[in-house]
Amino acid sequence: MALYTYSPLLADFYQLTMAYGYWRLNMHEQEAVFHLIFRKNPFKGRYALSCGLGSVIDFIKQWQFQEDDLAYLASLKNHQNEPFFPSEFLDYLRQLKFTCDIDAIPEGTIVFPNEPLLRIQGPILQCQLLETSLLAIINFQTLIATKASRVCYAAQGDPVIEFGMRRAQGPDGAVSASRAAYIGGCVATSNTLAGKLFDIPVRGTHAHSWVTAFPSEKEAFAAYAQVMPHNCILLVDTYDTIEGVQHAIEIGKKLRAEGADLLGIRLDSGDMAELSIKARQLLDTAGFENTLILASNSLDEYVIEKFKQKGAKISSWGVGTNLATAYDHPALDGVYKLSALRDQQGEWQYKLKLSEQEVKVSNPGRHQVRRFFYNEQYVMDVMYDLSLGISDTPEAVPFNTDEQVKKLDDIDAYVDLLEPVFQQGELVQSSKSIHDTRKNAIKAVEDFYRIQGEKEYTVALEKHLHELKMALIKKHS
Amino acid sequence: MALYTYSPLLADFYQLTMAYGYWRLNMHEQEAVFHLIFRKNPFKGRYALSCGLGSVIDFIKQWQFQEDDLAYLASLKNHQNEPFFPSEFLDYLRQLKFTCDIDAIPEGTIVFPNEPLLRIQGPILQCQLLETSLLAIINFQTLIATKASRVCYAAQGDPVIEFGMRRAQGPDGAVSASRAAYIGGCVATSNTLAGKLFDIPVRGTHAHSWVTAFPSEKEAFAAYAQVMPHNCILLVDTYDTIEGVQHAIEIGKKLRAEGADLLGIRLDSGDMAELSIKARQLLDTAGFENTLILASNSLDEYVIEKFKQKGAKISSWGVGTNLATAYDHPALDGVYKLSALRDQQGEWQYKLKLSEQEVKVSNPGRHQVRRFFYNEQYVMDVMYDLSLGISDTPEAVPFNTDEQVKKLDDIDAYVDLLEPVFQQGELVQSSKSIHDTRKNAIKAVEDFYRIQGEKEYTVALEKHLHELKMALIKKHS
Repeated sequence: MALYTYSPLLADFYQLTMAYGYWRLNMHEQEAVFHLIFRKNPFKGRYALSCGLGSVIDFIKQWQFQEDDLAYLASLKNHQNEPFFPSEFLDYLRQLKFTCDIDAIPEGTIVFPNEPLLRIQGPILQCQLLETSLLAIINFQTLIATKASRVCYAAQGDPVIEFGMRRAQGPDGAVSASRAAYIGGCVATSNTLAGKLFDIPVRGTHAHSWVTAFPSEKEAFAAYAQVMPHNCILLVDTYDTIEGVQHAIEIGKKLRAEGADLLGIRLDSGDMAELSIKARQLLDTAGFENTLILASNSLDEYVIEKFKQKGAKISSWGVGTNLATAYDHPALDGVYKLSALRDQQGEWQYKLKLSEQEVKVSNPGRHQVRRFFYNEQYVMDVMYDLSLGISDTPEAVPFNTDEQVKKLDDIDAYVDLLEPVFQQGELVQSSKSIHDTRKNAIKAVEDFYRIQGEKEYTVALEKHLHELKMALIKKHS
Repeated sequence: MALYTYSPLLADFYQLTMAYGYWRLNMHEQEAVFHLIFRKNPFKGRYALSCGLGSVIDFIKQWQFQEDDLAYLASLKNHQNEPFFPSEFLDYLRQLKFTCDIDAIPEGTIVFPNEPLLRIQGPILQCQLLETSLLAIINFQTLIATKASRVCYAAQGDPVIEFGMRRAQGPDGAVSASRAAYIGGCVATSNTLAGKLFDIPVRGTHAHSWVTAFPSEKEAFAAYAQVMPHNCILLVDTYDTIEGVQHAIEIGKKLRAEGADLLGIRLDSGDMAELSIKARQLLDTAGFENTLILASNSLDEYVIEKFKQKGAKISSWGVGTNLATAYDHPALDGVYKLSALRDQQGEWQYKLKLSEQEVKVSNPGRHQVRRFFYNEQYVMDVMYDLSLGISDTPEAVPFNTDEQVKKLDDIDAYVDLLEPVFQQGELVQSSKSIHDTRKNAIKAVEDFYRIQGEKEYTVALEKHLHELKMALIKKHS
């Protein structure tokens, strides 16, 4: 299936003007290293859950300029009404193949600000052309997977279903959100297309319109039970919720007489904590102890937590807009920075961008992230440079501190987080099942909440890399 | 070009279970009317700017179940591990063609809560299957067009360029946002794919990485000027903004010597109001009075307004994340409600959903919206029912008031806002140029701000429709 947005033109136009510039100056094959990082944890939280790499792989596999792309670029004019790009450059793009290395932190990993989620090494022209699409994919899916993990954590193991399509940010905003929400821990989506594209379980029963299409709620419920006896979750709030529950129970008895059962009811308005308690009593009294109570309507992790505290008897949660748009923090602030460039002599020149805001000063080098463990919990992530290396008991300088050097002595184990994905343009990582990725993500989030307590997790620059950065800052200031 | 998300499976799964239910009960061709409305103005504002109809038309034109869609649906199982849908139903979907009427308010119209942006009339099964995709398209594009109109209004006629792709909600979140932002008044986008798909002007010059790729800023600027002398807007904040401006001026002099010019500089960090004033002085003193100062970095209507108050010398505005995600209000709350169903005798049965929240009680009937004018400004929108009609001097009951009946006497003119788009499945509206739509939208927004003052605009239900609604509420309470 053609993914229309997966075009090399999914790029800020300046990527193309810069690509042309590098090509004109014959710098286009100069080897560069870029990192994709984010600067701040979303949702005032203490972590993010990496997501989107699977979509990046799909994107890169299709990354090839098509004739209609080139015709479009050929049609563009500059301020002098001359063609923006000469045909020789477009010929170059026509034959261009992806030949970079990409190393990435696997989807479903707990990650922190300043760490590279992706490292891209290859001809500067290609690295540059990929910037915007990599950011658009990783920023959004990481944001939504993180949100989903927070919502699922608040639900304390109850199933959470993602219901967000109707108010998502465009059709693919919905489809991408469904993928990320599933990886982040949701059990299913209402989005049928996402179900098809990514093998995510889909769920759904009926809307208010089903009820209003019949002369009465009872007739509507009876009709639904008749046509779908084994998927019978009845939406009970079209007219009056408690009456709706009573009607559902009547239908449940009929279903049982026919060898089926009332799977559940759905609440969608009112004080759902209180209504769920009443509904549970009514259902239990009538012998429907196993009938689920599903709630939907403006839910998020905060509302779910509050409902739990009130003793709500809700067994599964349909979470829509607030999840699929990350309503309270609708963008992750990921950036993509050049950090090294190989010169004519084959030496790496380290690169850095200054800023008055210290958090915006980029990190030079070619990075790996080493996560150190002690007593089976991770205690610090240290970014190091591939050329400078890292010792067994490294010294490191944490970000966002008074820049004290810390020495890591008490260490049981470590793991390097960035794994090879593409090497010289070839995919070297075997395809991962979205279900396995989701399982890993759920475990990672559980571990994080279990072991990381309330303190800010430490990410640090390996000491030699830190010194290099300081020297470069001095040079450019 | 295949738009992968434009599939009939772009639907909440319950649309498919309901469709199956209607088909099983032989109700699937019963004629229904649904309206798409929103309930609350976004951004704490007083209007929304309608957008997305062009994409809805593209979507409907491609609306046809494909074999792989049907194979997917055939693969789904219910809780008894039986097929969810019998093959006869999938055969029905295979041959299904769109045959509905759609009437819609044109893109680029100022609209208000409770008004139908779309009215869909046709077989209930089709109306139901379309719900989620229509909402996803209209909700998001209307949201972003509205946001863009606010940003452009704050910019007081300065050009605003949409820069949001990298942090948009997925690749198509970006593409849809670019379309809506252009209609809402932006002059261009950085999104090359949106440029190609929708004929939107694209803009862009270079990033920080261009500067850091060279040994010094001066060399980077010189190189850019060399390769793109007629698109030379230099980003000056990689190391030190004021020094950057001085370097840009040096390059500008060289460009002039070669018959070109320094088109502009771009600020991307720091106190940009203050920096722009200093940069303007430096440029003017050096004879670069026509060189533009472009600003980007976390801009929105509030920041632009503040900068204007501070006397910032910014000539054009690159607005990214806050525009493309509608950061401060990232979803429009549009809903899609069944409001009439034709019975076996061919009579319309009016439908309504109750709610404890009055704003969530739906409006029965088949609606048109009549906008009344007095002294060349519009004074009230009155929703009326197509069967009940409306008099020349109608009485109407405003929403959100004490339900006093108002009589409209002083009226010069009126216009009915909903226009036919599809009739019995055929597109009857000629295709509109996005540029014309944008011009209409800009004029509509200007008129709104000019004539509507600070008071809430009145939307009302024509008196007989209001009575009908009250009778139905009574019946169901």
